[in-house]
Amino acid sequence: MDRRAFSRLAGSALAGLGLPAGFAFPAEGAARLGRMAPRVDGARLNAWLVELSRFGANANGGVDRVAFSDADVEARAWTAELMGSAGLDVSVDLAGNLWGRREGTDPSLPALALGSHIDSVPDGGNYDGPVGSLGAIEVALTLAEAGVRTRHPLHVVVFSNEEGGKTGSRALAGEVAPRELDLVTASGLTIGEGLRRIGGNPDRLERARLGPGALAGFLELHIEQGAVLESEGVDIGVVEGIVGIVRWTAVVEGETNHAGTTPMPLRRDALVGAARFVDAVHTTVRDWPGSQVATVGRLQVEPGAPNVIPGRATLSLEVRDLSMEKIEAVYTELSRQAAVIGEATGTVFSFDRFYTSGAAPTAPAFREAVVGAARALGLSTRHMPSGAGHDAQSMARICPMGMLFVPSAGGVSHAPHEYTSPEEVTRGADVLLGALLHLDAAGTGP
Amino acid sequence: MDRRAFSRLAGSALAGLGLPAGFAFPAEGAARLGRMAPRVDGARLNAWLVELSRFGANANGGVDRVAFSDADVEARAWTAELMGSAGLDVSVDLAGNLWGRREGTDPSLPALALGSHIDSVPDGGNYDGPVGSLGAIEVALTLAEAGVRTRHPLHVVVFSNEEGGKTGSRALAGEVAPRELDLVTASGLTIGEGLRRIGGNPDRLERARLGPGALAGFLELHIEQGAVLESEGVDIGVVEGIVGIVRWTAVVEGETNHAGTTPMPLRRDALVGAARFVDAVHTTVRDWPGSQVATVGRLQVEPGAPNVIPGRATLSLEVRDLSMEKIEAVYTELSRQAAVIGEATGTVFSFDRFYTSGAAPTAPAFREAVVGAARALGLSTRHMPSGAGHDAQSMARICPMGMLFVPSAGGVSHAPHEYTSPEEVTRGADVLLGALLHLDAAGTGP
Repeated sequence: MDRRAFSRLAGSALAGLGLPAGFAFPAEGAARLGRMAPRVDGARLNAWLVELSRFGANANGGVDRVAFSDADVEARAWTAELMGSAGLDVSVDLAGNLWGRREGTDPSLPALALGSHIDSVPDGGNYDGPVGSLGAIEVALTLAEAGVRTRHPLHVVVFSNEEGGKTGSRALAGEVAPRELDLVTASGLTIGEGLRRIGGNPDRLERARLGPGALAGFLELHIEQGAVLESEGVDIGVVEGIVGIVRWTAVVEGETNHAGTTPMPLRRDALVGAARFVDAVHTTVRDWPGSQVATVGRLQVEPGAPNVIPGRATLSLEVRDLSMEKIEAVYTELSRQAAVIGEATGTVFSFDRFYTSGAAPTAPAFREAVVGAARALGLSTRHMPSGAGHDAQSMARICPMGMLFVPSAGGVSHAPHEYTSPEEVTRGADVLLGALLHLDAAGTGP
Repeated sequence: MDRRAFSRLAGSALAGLGLPAGFAFPAEGAARLGRMAPRVDGARLNAWLVELSRFGANANGGVDRVAFSDADVEARAWTAELMGSAGLDVSVDLAGNLWGRREGTDPSLPALALGSHIDSVPDGGNYDGPVGSLGAIEVALTLAEAGVRTRHPLHVVVFSNEEGGKTGSRALAGEVAPRELDLVTASGLTIGEGLRRIGGNPDRLERARLGPGALAGFLELHIEQGAVLESEGVDIGVVEGIVGIVRWTAVVEGETNHAGTTPMPLRRDALVGAARFVDAVHTTVRDWPGSQVATVGRLQVEPGAPNVIPGRATLSLEVRDLSMEKIEAVYTELSRQAAVIGEATGTVFSFDRFYTSGAAPTAPAFREAVVGAARALGLSTRHMPSGAGHDAQSMARICPMGMLFVPSAGGVSHAPHEYTSPEEVTRGADVLLGALLHLDAAGTGP
């Protein structure tokens, strides 16, 4: 990694970041705080977030920083420079992941990794990804300034193309199929072209894979992207796992007919069948104990004219839960209800499963470390699933994994008005730091 | 009307129609049947239907004979030739309606008119329109052969462009707005161009209007296009009127959100609101006493992805009934329920009325004439609304109007497998004849 190249690209953006001019890595142990836990510099971290938001900033107040775009490339250069300034040894792996490494005190231990991503969805927000990425760098810098060296090596990782398919983290888990490399991303480049652009090598992607034991664990700070923490006034979400997702296409067959000449009792209206099913999905899944969710997000009606009774409706059904068995049980119940609805409405339901993503539970030691760190800071916590997918989901295939959430205002995400307050960001980074130190001291085992 | 031109066009199609070669109009009264009621020649009528179905016949067993197409032009020429052969005096009016006239015995009386249309929807069937058009010609020919002359003049009319907006009959009622002439029809021609092609004159369309008293009445035989007669085993439908139609667009506003991170109780799912409304429409209108119908035929969901909670649903609502007051009462009840559903689902409903077509009741004397004619033939009858629009609806603005239905197999219409058996077609034409003679003798007043 040529750090001068990054400086040339992003040097101007680094001005006024909160990093002192001529910042130098403090002498080991010089600022050691004894038994008092170190705390991150929240003002500095939030200033970095503002800086990062300039890359791809759009007129809506959000960012267009899709993976492999110019904005993404420039933001990565800026981030790499920041890593280096925080005393980390910077490199890019074959999958385009940006790594910053710091040695530990025990050469026999594998590294503990922290990180997230900095690419966005089109017209996305400024917190989904950056909070965890810059939070991890802030943790490393805080440790460096405090003169604290962990037993395990500390790795900060910024994954490539999270929003476009978690390419970087999935490559570490050996999960990227060769044909994926030909998919065109929102940047206009294929994933393969994009990886090459950011310093990866799609031809040797399988060598990016991390073997068992390569890492002692991975911990990701992220915004919740939901409204649970805010609505309950809780500071920190302790993620129980990343939910599994199963999606089906359901087709409801009725009989197309004249809307004027077909009396109500003689109708076999596919939309009436579909509508009752949509209601049944919502009501059943809402009332079932647990945190599972189910959504009908797509519904198409044929032929689709105001004066024609619909003969066919096609809809999507998605069910998410931490337990794949629960997802199956929900589906079994919903398909039973579909048959009853079909009987009552003269329609026939059929289901086709087209997508499955396995659930990824977090490691108990990581949940305990997050709870302990929050408690030490006087922060409230709540256990909760992650309903969204994250890089941590791929990392769970490699090593013990944990995640913590900070609140999202109004639950909004993937939109320009995504927001987490500076105080909330700082709390998250402090818990990330505390949990890291706990895991480093106590180990990551169950 | 140049009948030789029609002969050149359609002469070959006329061969083997059941019309004797060199058919000549019988001498007046020569075949008079005394007090015995004349009966149509069902074999001949059904043979004509087969002949007519050749114009625009497609591979699906149906017809593509949209108004103003080559198939329509050729079928009209064939029909005009048939009218002439049945002893009718043929002409085309400014609205492209094809008329066949036969004198009555009382010059002081206005004409009684029978008729329907012969244009089809794209990929339509062989009975919607042709049964009533050719049935009317068969009635005229039967009377001619029987030597029976009615008191009123008898007019047979084949209306132009029924399926594309009832242009011909609405022009007679003075209801065609000038801007309609620029609408492009399924033929590729505008209505104005199409009218010109079939011998009308769009520039002078307002002169096609019939004044009050121009006709003593209008009676249309048509297929039911529904399954009521078939399912109840009834021969003849006595139409109480053509239903009014009101259509609304309803918009359901909820909140777009992440399908993974938004717990069920925090959702404001526009599709859940819309689905409950669709069910409420069906259930409420089905259980309300009467023959009203309501349909949600179109439903669009935004943004429409499997992993996004719908923020908006847009749907069509159509209500039909013989009573406009009933339609309003149904709408009032449904909008009340929409508000309740909105409250329960965190969504907001708004309605925009975009189409109203007034109900057209049939004249009591016409209903009685149809019942009397059917009874005399030993046929069963049932009073019923016409849920579909018909040319008779426009004619109701001009003169007393009646309609009778024959069964549609399976209720199918506007499709290639539309079917009414030869026996049913014959019964319909016999009742048309009997009702005409009743009205001619008794008058058409209330």
